[in-house]
Amino acid sequence: FNITCVPQTNPSPVWTWSCQSDRCEKQLVVEGETAQALDACKLLCGEYRVLWPKPTGLVQLGTSIAIISQHAITAELSRSGRELSPKVAELFRGATKLFRDNVVDLGKGVGPIRSVGRSLLIEATITDTETASFKSNTDESYRLEISETTNGRINSSIVAATFFGFRHALETLLQLTIYNDVTQELQILDKALITDSPVFPHRGILLDTARNFISVESIKRTLNGMAASKLNTFHWHITDSHSFPFEVESYPQLTQYGAYTPSKVFTPADIRTVVEYARVRGVRVVPEFDAPAHVGEGWQWAGPNVTVCVKAEPWTSYCVEPPCGQLNPTNGTVYEILGEIYKEMFKLFDSDIFHMGGDEVNFNCWNSTEEIVTWLSNKGLGRQEEDFLELWDEFQTKALNKVEEANGGASLPIVLWTSGLTGKGHVEKYLDKERYIIQIWTTGSDELIGELVNKGYRIIVSNYDALYFDCGFGAWVGEGNNWCSPYIGWQKVYMNSPYDIVTNLGVNLTSDVRAQILGSEATLWTEQVDDSSVDGRLWPRSSAMAERLWSNPAESWREAEYRMLHHRERLVQRGVQPESLEPLWCLQNHGYCYL
Amino acid sequence: FNITCVPQTNPSPVWTWSCQSDRCEKQLVVEGETAQALDACKLLCGEYRVLWPKPTGLVQLGTSIAIISQHAITAELSRSGRELSPKVAELFRGATKLFRDNVVDLGKGVGPIRSVGRSLLIEATITDTETASFKSNTDESYRLEISETTNGRINSSIVAATFFGFRHALETLLQLTIYNDVTQELQILDKALITDSPVFPHRGILLDTARNFISVESIKRTLNGMAASKLNTFHWHITDSHSFPFEVESYPQLTQYGAYTPSKVFTPADIRTVVEYARVRGVRVVPEFDAPAHVGEGWQWAGPNVTVCVKAEPWTSYCVEPPCGQLNPTNGTVYEILGEIYKEMFKLFDSDIFHMGGDEVNFNCWNSTEEIVTWLSNKGLGRQEEDFLELWDEFQTKALNKVEEANGGASLPIVLWTSGLTGKGHVEKYLDKERYIIQIWTTGSDELIGELVNKGYRIIVSNYDALYFDCGFGAWVGEGNNWCSPYIGWQKVYMNSPYDIVTNLGVNLTSDVRAQILGSEATLWTEQVDDSSVDGRLWPRSSAMAERLWSNPAESWREAEYRMLHHRERLVQRGVQPESLEPLWCLQNHGYCYL
Repeated sequence: FNITCVPQTNPSPVWTWSCQSDRCEKQLVVEGETAQALDACKLLCGEYRVLWPKPTGLVQLGTSIAIISQHAITAELSRSGRELSPKVAELFRGATKLFRDNVVDLGKGVGPIRSVGRSLLIEATITDTETASFKSNTDESYRLEISETTNGRINSSIVAATFFGFRHALETLLQLTIYNDVTQELQILDKALITDSPVFPHRGILLDTARNFISVESIKRTLNGMAASKLNTFHWHITDSHSFPFEVESYPQLTQYGAYTPSKVFTPADIRTVVEYARVRGVRVVPEFDAPAHVGEGWQWAGPNVTVCVKAEPWTSYCVEPPCGQLNPTNGTVYEILGEIYKEMFKLFDSDIFHMGGDEVNFNCWNSTEEIVTWLSNKGLGRQEEDFLELWDEFQTKALNKVEEANGGASLPIVLWTSGLTGKGHVEKYLDKERYIIQIWTTGSDELIGELVNKGYRIIVSNYDALYFDCGFGAWVGEGNNWCSPYIGWQKVYMNSPYDIVTNLGVNLTSDVRAQILGSEATLWTEQVDDSSVDGRLWPRSSAMAERLWSNPAESWREAEYRMLHHRERLVQRGVQPESLEPLWCLQNHGYCYL
Repeated sequence: FNITCVPQTNPSPVWTWSCQSDRCEKQLVVEGETAQALDACKLLCGEYRVLWPKPTGLVQLGTSIAIISQHAITAELSRSGRELSPKVAELFRGATKLFRDNVVDLGKGVGPIRSVGRSLLIEATITDTETASFKSNTDESYRLEISETTNGRINSSIVAATFFGFRHALETLLQLTIYNDVTQELQILDKALITDSPVFPHRGILLDTARNFISVESIKRTLNGMAASKLNTFHWHITDSHSFPFEVESYPQLTQYGAYTPSKVFTPADIRTVVEYARVRGVRVVPEFDAPAHVGEGWQWAGPNVTVCVKAEPWTSYCVEPPCGQLNPTNGTVYEILGEIYKEMFKLFDSDIFHMGGDEVNFNCWNSTEEIVTWLSNKGLGRQEEDFLELWDEFQTKALNKVEEANGGASLPIVLWTSGLTGKGHVEKYLDKERYIIQIWTTGSDELIGELVNKGYRIIVSNYDALYFDCGFGAWVGEGNNWCSPYIGWQKVYMNSPYDIVTNLGVNLTSDVRAQILGSEATLWTEQVDDSSVDGRLWPRSSAMAERLWSNPAESWREAEYRMLHHRERLVQRGVQPESLEPLWCLQNHGYCYL
């Protein structure tokens, strides 16, 4: 075959990289020598090469590279396996098409791909032929083997319990595939054997689309980054006091009054698009409808006293940030509307858990509303904290009934934020540990975390001192820096181990306790974020969390640093706009950017 | 005419805005009433409406709005004026075309534009028919009048001393034009009289394209934001120790060895594109070639001892960040190569000032190089600070000769960073105040600033505690936060008055002193920034600085806050991806987001 017609944009590079002591060292090309591309060197150098997150099982990686052709990548189901259900078969086709597209994109913006090379066959065995929805107990493990057949084909055999494990294997396979910018070829490691499964089952990102609107396009980019980092849960904080972008067909007034503009709305079709886009990327979309606080805009049509304190002034007396607003637990219309909202959520989303929010209820707001005060008095209650907790319990109980009604009468795990309701001495009274999962948002040294675990609650850790990605910017009310400053570097995110948090609080890490610690979510509250900046806030820091949750590495961020720099560039290739962590010089000069 | 065929995406909004006490208040639409769009309300509400930066002269603004047609916007030169030179005529055509494009883009992503409306005629008088290059003394003033002719046409008369003033007037006119998302029309204030000119002549942004590469596309977006904010100087820190992306035709090795990749290069064509793109937007491009420190990558081919300490280890001994590298002032090849670099810069750029860098020279680096130590000894010098300053002076003198040679033998103002050379007791010895402008990068309370002004130096203020936009993120060597943390909010940027800085240091603000204080530059060092995040770092904070420099307002950021929020949305319309400062709710609810 003839390759002289292929343009050579970089015929004679002066630099080459060679692997020395597990580092790719940049060196001048010696006359007569051929330069080795940085990515090719990295694919062959170091225990984990460029894998992110690093696998937890067997990792046997070859020492040479094969050239593959972008036109000869195929995937098929192993003949010994059973037939996939139509839905899983569709996911299989979608995920393998994505793999092919992603391989071809490796060269995008860098150079042309020479069409020479071997064929790559992916042979898959998926044991569970039915599971097409990611659930809290979904088996995400996989076994990936790369080998060469006698006729020169590259075989990649993937065995996974579920589609979701299979999909993770494709990500790993993609990470072992590079575009070589010196030879302008697609290349793959010609030998590998990896067994892998995550340490924590719950690995998520929370995105708030109400403080500022975040478009479906941005959500899709977020899901691209999640897929590339093997995160599995997109927690959609879809409404808040500031705006109500979630279109509810039975109550169109909610968005008519509550959306920022008529175009800043999520239609049912938008939601379905997101759920399916996420599914094929191994991500479950968990909706949050935050109540009874964090409501306001969108409810103005519902009549007096359905919501209270909306836009109340001075806001500092009635809530934590403008605008204020809470539901009125004593008003029947509240539950009527909530019931419909929940119903439509259960119709559109496909999640085995539901998030009811429940944070930052302001008792002074309720205390300043006559209807509520009368209700308390009629119940023989006073107006102290304990009394308002009873009122809150009234809300939580009734709202939960509506959630279960929307879920076809069946109960399901409910997530709630840490709050007054989850505090010492209250939590067992109000929240059944079999039913409620508590999402921690206080600091990682909050004793409450230890107490909750000791009491048997399952927890999701989103401690704000490590996982609130909105921290560190300018204040948006007043001046100076925002409340949870400083900015959290990826190093701190990486070191934020849920197990360490719990053991540092004196809890013995038994296997029961481990099972209670479901994982973490990086949270992005969007008071100061919209489509323009959402990617940079989330990435690559969410990937740092992803390795913590998947691999729970014993080593520090220092050992992960240069793989992190590489993975950050991978996110760029996947269409994400991540923050840059260091000069590109550091990626090209492994080990020289230290302190 | 028939308008029923135009789609009505939002036929009956429930919210309207009305101007009360200079604020647009959000209210429910009363039955029978027509909603007023937020942007229409803002165009009619408050002393400065939505102008940014606010004009410094006469501001008389009408109280009603006219509908204009996107197809009937024309611009012509006043018949009484003299003919423009071909180059200025080309700029006139370019800037007026940009104006039309920007008007049409007002509706982009929001809704369709109904084609009904009056014609808009821009009638321009540009006194200086020759000046097509922005210079330090270019008159940027303009007079803008909007009026209605008897036949219903909207007339906009612009009188400006130069093209650059005319262009600013177009920006102001554009700010008085809106897309009304309720009526789906382009609208303009039907009456206005504004006279305007800036307080500070030097209003710039520094962008470093060497720590990480920044593409021409990103530079263009930066220039779009600058044009929208009436900034006039793009200071291009084009090379550094980390990479050498500036293609020098006579020494192609510089990029061959020094560019991060073959595509991360600025070709001569790229530079010309940037310079012309900037020019029509009223921006001068000032190149910086930083030396004798801040070099390294790209020089490896030039032979031994041309550069010293390149990639020296441990870097902490030889420079402020990895990788180290300095030119060797005692090596003749240095000046040969510098001469060619300067020559090509003067050929490509069109700037009346030149930036020679000159910061952060590390004497220990020079002290560790035998050739340099020998030179010092031969000159009868020791190895103390004073001796190394003599060596530095040797470099600066010889390099300056090369700069003037490249400038056709003529001298021109040279900018240098504050450094050892500009310190107390040194500056007069080494730097002629008639020739050198000093760019301050220490804090705003550094006594050096007062001294430099008292000694008669002209200064550009880039104090890092307010104008270093890379501050506040994670560390990139080691952990924790980067060196100049915390993040600087727009409020602090807005309040960073160069006059206040100088008077707070005890300097009497005479008219001579005022003339010495040229202005400010926001600086973006890109160790942790590349194409993905450059917009968010620069915007909208650079706009906050822009109003400080153009208007030098007596009021605080609090009075500017809601105009700032509006201007931030304007940047989005111009294709920039600025940080979001507050929830969109705050823009829609003027005055409610306070502390």
